[in-house]
Amino acid sequence: VKTSLCFLLAARRCEMADLQQLTETSALVRQTAALIHHLQRERGLSHLFIGSKGLRFAAEREQQIAWTDHSEAQLRACFDALGTNPPMRHGTRLFSRIAHTLHGLDTLPQMRQSVQGLALTALELFHGYTRLINCLMSVVFEAADMATDPALSRLLVALFHLMQGKELAGQERAVGSALWSAGSVAREGQQQLAHLIESQDKCLGLFEHFATPELLQLWRQCQSPQVEAERERLRRLLLQTLAGGDLDSQKSSAWFDCCSQRMDEWRLVEEQMAKMLVEHSAARWASVAEEVQAIEALKARLATAQDADLPGNAAPLFAPDPGGVATLGPALEKSVLDMLQEQSVRLQSMAAELDLVRASLNDRKRIERAKGLLMAHQQLSEEGAHKALRDLAMRQNQRMVDVADAVLSMAALFKPKA
Amino acid sequence: VKTSLCFLLAARRCEMADLQQLTETSALVRQTAALIHHLQRERGLSHLFIGSKGLRFAAEREQQIAWTDHSEAQLRACFDALGTNPPMRHGTRLFSRIAHTLHGLDTLPQMRQSVQGLALTALELFHGYTRLINCLMSVVFEAADMATDPALSRLLVALFHLMQGKELAGQERAVGSALWSAGSVAREGQQQLAHLIESQDKCLGLFEHFATPELLQLWRQCQSPQVEAERERLRRLLLQTLAGGDLDSQKSSAWFDCCSQRMDEWRLVEEQMAKMLVEHSAARWASVAEEVQAIEALKARLATAQDADLPGNAAPLFAPDPGGVATLGPALEKSVLDMLQEQSVRLQSMAAELDLVRASLNDRKRIERAKGLLMAHQQLSEEGAHKALRDLAMRQNQRMVDVADAVLSMAALFKPKA
Repeated sequence: VKTSLCFLLAARRCEMADLQQLTETSALVRQTAALIHHLQRERGLSHLFIGSKGLRFAAEREQQIAWTDHSEAQLRACFDALGTNPPMRHGTRLFSRIAHTLHGLDTLPQMRQSVQGLALTALELFHGYTRLINCLMSVVFEAADMATDPALSRLLVALFHLMQGKELAGQERAVGSALWSAGSVAREGQQQLAHLIESQDKCLGLFEHFATPELLQLWRQCQSPQVEAERERLRRLLLQTLAGGDLDSQKSSAWFDCCSQRMDEWRLVEEQMAKMLVEHSAARWASVAEEVQAIEALKARLATAQDADLPGNAAPLFAPDPGGVATLGPALEKSVLDMLQEQSVRLQSMAAELDLVRASLNDRKRIERAKGLLMAHQQLSEEGAHKALRDLAMRQNQRMVDVADAVLSMAALFKPKA
Repeated sequence: VKTSLCFLLAARRCEMADLQQLTETSALVRQTAALIHHLQRERGLSHLFIGSKGLRFAAEREQQIAWTDHSEAQLRACFDALGTNPPMRHGTRLFSRIAHTLHGLDTLPQMRQSVQGLALTALELFHGYTRLINCLMSVVFEAADMATDPALSRLLVALFHLMQGKELAGQERAVGSALWSAGSVAREGQQQLAHLIESQDKCLGLFEHFATPELLQLWRQCQSPQVEAERERLRRLLLQTLAGGDLDSQKSSAWFDCCSQRMDEWRLVEEQMAKMLVEHSAARWASVAEEVQAIEALKARLATAQDADLPGNAAPLFAPDPGGVATLGPALEKSVLDMLQEQSVRLQSMAAELDLVRASLNDRKRIERAKGLLMAHQQLSEEGAHKALRDLAMRQNQRMVDVADAVLSMAALFKPKA
């Protein structure tokens, strides 16, 4: 029959299993972040390649494709290694996201061929790569949402927001480039830009909120003030030129470069965080494993004490200190009670902190759910649902999440599915 | 290399594993509900036994203790059978609750001895049994909070609220009995009674909110209007008699009987729900297992189609329809995409529904967390923290959850633990 102590032990073993799983998903997140960065670069170079009608950036693009392929192979290896035995618990959404991602990656060679043949518009190219990157971001999101250790969850959530901010910076680079190339300012492009900058700042704010002081220091060290000043100057030109006004298309490459440098700087912090994540989850696992050993030792001592107490068991002749064993009983019993109490307090405060950290993921969850509702009841694709929400947000000058909430609040009006 | 379809399959296998786990915890919940009911009866009879100074109810109590013991043995067997191999994921809190419960059950024989020797006051007896029942309720709570299937989660949450309502009815029976036995009305007892009735109604409201129409019908059928009318009449006498006024202590046994009959009626619905829970989770598991088989069949067909396409593989001489295999490709590819889309929509709407159902557990979570905070920083026991919150709520005439929120909002003021 299992005792109270057995289940205290089982609880800690569950924690170990969860941390083991987190170590695996951390490696996955790290590799995902690397691939996203390569896809962002490939998107940028493909854009320049198409913009120059295939006359420039061909070699750089080819080189980048080789790097992307290498990174993709590493991520696929990570996916393959992902624990399906024993099956990952609560992994349904993560695995579903991975299925989507793999499906997206399978279409990449075809897209590249179209770029090579100049058979894609800049907008199609942008949407193609962005959709794929969004799939990969969802993998990171689910990993962040699954973590059950508050400190690691905090790190994952900070990393997710930094990655999301960087991707929005990549989208800003593309939208800005389109404006510079056009040589004149379009109102819609300006609105889109303002929207991207606002969302970006929000993500970076959340990153800073959840990052440790050491990470914030690294964050400040990695960013060059010159690059930032140049980006802000060009942003201002893009945003403050009156609609229809002329833009100096010569500045296009300066814009592209300083946006790219910015993303490369952030990438350093991102990689550092991903590395920490892998290391810290392994370290947390080891520390819980040590505690489990200590409890096991206590359990063994209790068993000895109880065996000695059993009426049928005569005390062994040469027992070193039978009196000691007998008096050990209540003291050990007391420490089991203390451990139960301590565990209970710890679990409650962990749960409270987890809630707090995860709440920052809620905006995205609500947007995803509103998209799901639109997909199910308006027969829209994921792409179409996203566009519908984004267009509505732009038209009403609201945030995506506000529009999503409005959709969710009308959920009762949608006919339930058969 | 694993394909998109492999992970679609892995996602469904995760769902199967989660449902398998839910089937195990459902059996646990059913047995827990049974033991709680026996403990409630034992608490009631022990109360009558002590109240009669040991002159009456000795045989009934002894019989009930035998039943409780039998039910306890069954629950312990359930605990023992609980899947620790493969380790239950996200089970840390559940296992920790079980550890607490077992520790509580170990103290039961001692408490019974004290009752037998009339060495406990009615209040001590009440708190002893109630603490143990609360431990068991926490096990059900964690099981409800862990479920990832919305329909089953809804059933579990409905069941949890019914059980909680029944326990509050049991506490109302005890507090009311104390008032009748005293023969006069104390203001504090009246307040406590009003508080218990209010919380009880709230729980039953949530039960009714989450119960299916069939359950609601059973719920109405099980309750006798005569018993309810009698209970309401006696409640009114208890609550409307002016403080200090006399009560007819002869009514004590009518009060006890109609409260007990009520709880027995509710128990019928409770057991029916627990049974449904076990059956439905097994059925859900079987239905997902069937879907997994269908995906596996599709995967096998895709593999055949791809093998036939490989340049190195000459088509076998007597292949029944090689053309058919070749044209199967795009159609199968299309159905993988459809499945990805369908899965994604389904997961989003499941998540949205789960959120909605689980939100009803939030009040209790906040109360638990506030207790955790008090325990950690005011060096209080769980019992002490609960009392502190309850007393504060009574004094300020607020709900427990409001007081808990106030405590949580002041969390920043508490010094962080070293």
